[in-house]
Amino acid sequence: MSFTTKATITTFGGRLLKLSHPSKTTTTPMALNLYLPPAALVPTPTRVPLLIYLSGLTCSPENCTEKGFFQHRASQLGLALLWPDTSPRGLNLPGEKDAWDFGEAASFYIDATQEPFAGGYKMETYLTKELPEVLFGDEEFGEYLDKERVSITGHSMGGHGALTLYLKHRGLYKSVSAFAPIANPSQCPWGEKAFKGYLGEDREAWKAHDATELLGKCEKRDNVKMLVDVGTGDNFYKQGQLLPENLEKAAQEAGVEGFTLRYQEGYDHSYYFMASFADEHVEHAAKHLGLL
Amino acid sequence: MSFTTKATITTFGGRLLKLSHPSKTTTTPMALNLYLPPAALVPTPTRVPLLIYLSGLTCSPENCTEKGFFQHRASQLGLALLWPDTSPRGLNLPGEKDAWDFGEAASFYIDATQEPFAGGYKMETYLTKELPEVLFGDEEFGEYLDKERVSITGHSMGGHGALTLYLKHRGLYKSVSAFAPIANPSQCPWGEKAFKGYLGEDREAWKAHDATELLGKCEKRDNVKMLVDVGTGDNFYKQGQLLPENLEKAAQEAGVEGFTLRYQEGYDHSYYFMASFADEHVEHAAKHLGLL
Repeated sequence: MSFTTKATITTFGGRLLKLSHPSKTTTTPMALNLYLPPAALVPTPTRVPLLIYLSGLTCSPENCTEKGFFQHRASQLGLALLWPDTSPRGLNLPGEKDAWDFGEAASFYIDATQEPFAGGYKMETYLTKELPEVLFGDEEFGEYLDKERVSITGHSMGGHGALTLYLKHRGLYKSVSAFAPIANPSQCPWGEKAFKGYLGEDREAWKAHDATELLGKCEKRDNVKMLVDVGTGDNFYKQGQLLPENLEKAAQEAGVEGFTLRYQEGYDHSYYFMASFADEHVEHAAKHLGLL
Repeated sequence: MSFTTKATITTFGGRLLKLSHPSKTTTTPMALNLYLPPAALVPTPTRVPLLIYLSGLTCSPENCTEKGFFQHRASQLGLALLWPDTSPRGLNLPGEKDAWDFGEAASFYIDATQEPFAGGYKMETYLTKELPEVLFGDEEFGEYLDKERVSITGHSMGGHGALTLYLKHRGLYKSVSAFAPIANPSQCPWGEKAFKGYLGEDREAWKAHDATELLGKCEKRDNVKMLVDVGTGDNFYKQGQLLPENLEKAAQEAGVEGFTLRYQEGYDHSYYFMASFADEHVEHAAKHLGLL
């Protein structure tokens, strides 16, 4: 078995597992939480689809597991949930803990090319290659999960992660959604700082990791199965860190289908926003995973 | 206006308010959170029923507001929610902060008679007299709340609080429910420590604040409108701190109606347990408040 189980908790009729495993990609232990709904557990282990949730800056797998309430609708529909961590931890790299918006808990879910981060900050490879291989192949947990039916979602930096991993690895995920994503990181302070630190000064290289750039390159009538919610009371939206309007413009110019951006009146950037629409994002995934 | 508003947050279509007010009863500022569902807000302020939630040991109003998930169903049904604090804070009494299960954040929702707590630890009077008077009479928030339709619930120490305030003040609340309540505090270590410290050595005096004792004195066929959930994986249940079997025995011996105790297989004492059944406890209250 690949995972160490730190806790097993009964919730919403299913089983929440707090796990850790040694990652070859990041060269560190990686924490993650996994929720198995009742449909996966009874009467015998049954493969159910999986929704991966990527967290925002400063978060661990715990925050959304406790406050996001994705379990509520996932339990009813028979969808497993996976909350990976936001970066490797424990590498003790110079500058890794100097800021809350760069380094530890702020990986931006890319493979860094710049030192000292290039060694372990390979979250794109970790999330799209190693973690699925280890999880779906695990003798304890693999039998509960259908590796052919996976969707992805995320919040803020994790919304950026979900949108870009989906667009970079078409076919790996059946659908994507995001809450308040950093939708055009090449053009906002958070993204510029992160991409410069992880990828270097060449702004052309950044475009391969920018949801707005990637969406703009989709083909006409491509069904992107993408749901995005942004609160109009979100201070980071107001400060120009999220730039959903650029994402929408790219979708329109490319002429893609299946793109939905909703501005939610008065909602902020917090888990109170996400919990309010968690049911709907689970349903969006469930629809594309054949559960609805 | 009686309250200072520290935050206003849009969530589940309604408004979450983080409030504080000076209490004459406790002689301290008292924090509380209030959730107004959409039905209270549109098109003009409309009076809706209220469910009061009392928190457990060590908690503030924040824990359950973030992790309890009561807003989900309350929003749909049109029920306001109120999370008071677990004790006065800032009195700086000797011994007040020496333990996590006595003193600050551990009031047990009674009026203390023993010094040094008798001065400010008067949570029963605060919750049943002062807070309703101030809240329902408030010119800003009063017009959203129907003071004739109030129910109460709580967790652990707050479950004890909900059950006892309901049974001591019949008519004040339309129904009661509890998650993993300290159901017979006179007979468990947590309760014995608290009652000795707040009420003194006379065990006879403790009975007036013990849900099992109070339920045992109800009249035959009295409909107590009481729902209690306890997880079978709850370590505090296993350690004999909760004693729901004594509550059930008292209900049976008294011959009351409307008493439901459910053992939930595998659930622990955490917010993961409460969130799983929050919808159902909100529905229990809503039924007795005329919303279902």
